[in-house]
Amino acid sequence: MILGVVKGQVYSTINHPDYDGRRILLVDRIRPDGSEDGGYLIAVDAVDAGVGQTVLIVDEGNSARQVLENPDAPIRSVIIGIVDAIEVSQAGTS
Amino acid sequence: MILGVVKGQVYSTINHPDYDGRRILLVDRIRPDGSEDGGYLIAVDAVDAGVGQTVLIVDEGNSARQVLENPDAPIRSVIIGIVDAIEVSQAGTS
Amino acid sequence: MILGVVKGQVYSTINHPDYDGRRILLVDRIRPDGSEDGGYLIAVDAVDAGVGQTVLIVDEGNSARQVLENPDAPIRSVIIGIVDAIEVSQAGTS
Amino acid sequence: MILGVVKGQVYSTINHPDYDGRRILLVDRIRPDGSEDGGYLIAVDAVDAGVGQTVLIVDEGNSARQVLENPDAPIRSVIIGIVDAIEVSQAGTS
Amino acid sequence: MILGVVKGQVYSTINHPDYDGRRILLVDRIRPDGSEDGGYLIAVDAVDAGVGQTVLIVDEGNSARQVLENPDAPIRSVIIGIVDAIEVSQAGTS
Repeated sequence: MILGVVKGQVYSTINHPDYDGRRILLVDRIRPDGSEDGGYLIAVDAVDAGVGQTVLIVDEGNSARQVLENPDAPIRSVIIGIVDAIEVSQAGTS
Repeated sequence: MILGVVKGQVYSTINHPDYDGRRILLVDRIRPDGSEDGGYLIAVDAVDAGVGQTVLIVDEGNSARQVLENPDAPIRSVIIGIVDAIEVSQAGTS
Repeated sequence: MILGVVKGQVYSTINHPDYDGRRILLVDRIRPDGSEDGGYLIAVDAVDAGVGQTVLIVDEGNSARQVLENPDAPIRSVIIGIVDAIEVSQAGTS
Repeated sequence: MILGVVKGQVYSTINHPDYDGRRILLVDRIRPDGSEDGGYLIAVDAVDAGVGQTVLIVDEGNSARQVLENPDAPIRSVIIGIVDAIEVSQAGTS
Repeated sequence: MILGVVKGQVYSTINHPDYDGRRILLVDRIRPDGSEDGGYLIAVDAVDAGVGQTVLIVDEGNSARQVLENPDAPIRSVIIGIVDAIEVSQAGTS
């Protein structure tokens, strides 16, 4: 899984019914320290994420279909969690 | 999922019947601001996309097979939507 | 899917019976303009492709297994078509 | 599979029940000599790995679901082993 | 599929029984001319490969599970063949 920050929303004319009522979000990929790495993903929202929030993304079709509870959805990337904290520890202290 | 712009069409002698009657499009990958990132994909068209249009692509086999309603198709990349707008918001404003 | 040019053949002692009688080809990845991008794939031939030909490759296991009509084959990359032409259009002209 | 070093833990509000009670770890990718390559993964812990430990990660959904003994989990990356040693040999000596 | 050279072995405490008795090899990725490209994979050995040998690797879970004849194994990368020769041809001569 990877980390990202929600940057906006994509509006797309998609005929496939599995997308009806789903928000399609633009997510910039970030490093664990919060800096952007230059990449992005277009991901379906499953947690009601807002712009500026750090999120956890699963980029795998079967995971996405499971989260959306739809075994047939043509979706690969889904936001599965809002990140509350990333705790970086020193070796030996945790 | 990723964003791209349709650049042209690939004509290929493919014997597999799942490709009969399908347009195979050349899509340049783009960043959310519309600039090209130098990569491309060859994707099957599922939305009647035209050259110059910004599209949403799913690059995963099971998604592609689902969109084409063919559980056996040897296809990985499919254009699932035409992008109408990409709205980039400021944090806290959406 | 991606584009490549067949460069040669790999001879390998593979015990798995699904490879018996299959040509394993070395394919250099190319950009749509025909220039090589520095990468390569080792792909199973399904269309009797020859050296120097531009081909269309699907790099996904379930697609490869479907092309080879073998649901159990341990194969990820398969050449599914010989490219006859890549037509790059100007926006608005197609 | 790839190698990494556990760097910390991600705390995320995930509603999907398959994540309940699972530690989500931040793992920096490393080269076989132990140096970091600049990338990272967010992986679910299946071996009670601690910060500073070198681990083996499988980055594939069906593997992750199998390790967690849950065929429906929306998880792609899982830590499957703690690395005790990486033995680099000279050709002909093993 | 991709090419690599076996460099060594990884010793890891993995509780999953599918790894019992399996050698986990360190494989440096190579280009078709034999030069290393800087990347590596950790792959399960299925062909009794030795250090220094050039091998063919399938990096896909369902392939790996098929080679190991275990539909449940949490394994993505497997060495499926030892490469005897890579024949690079000139266009038109094969």
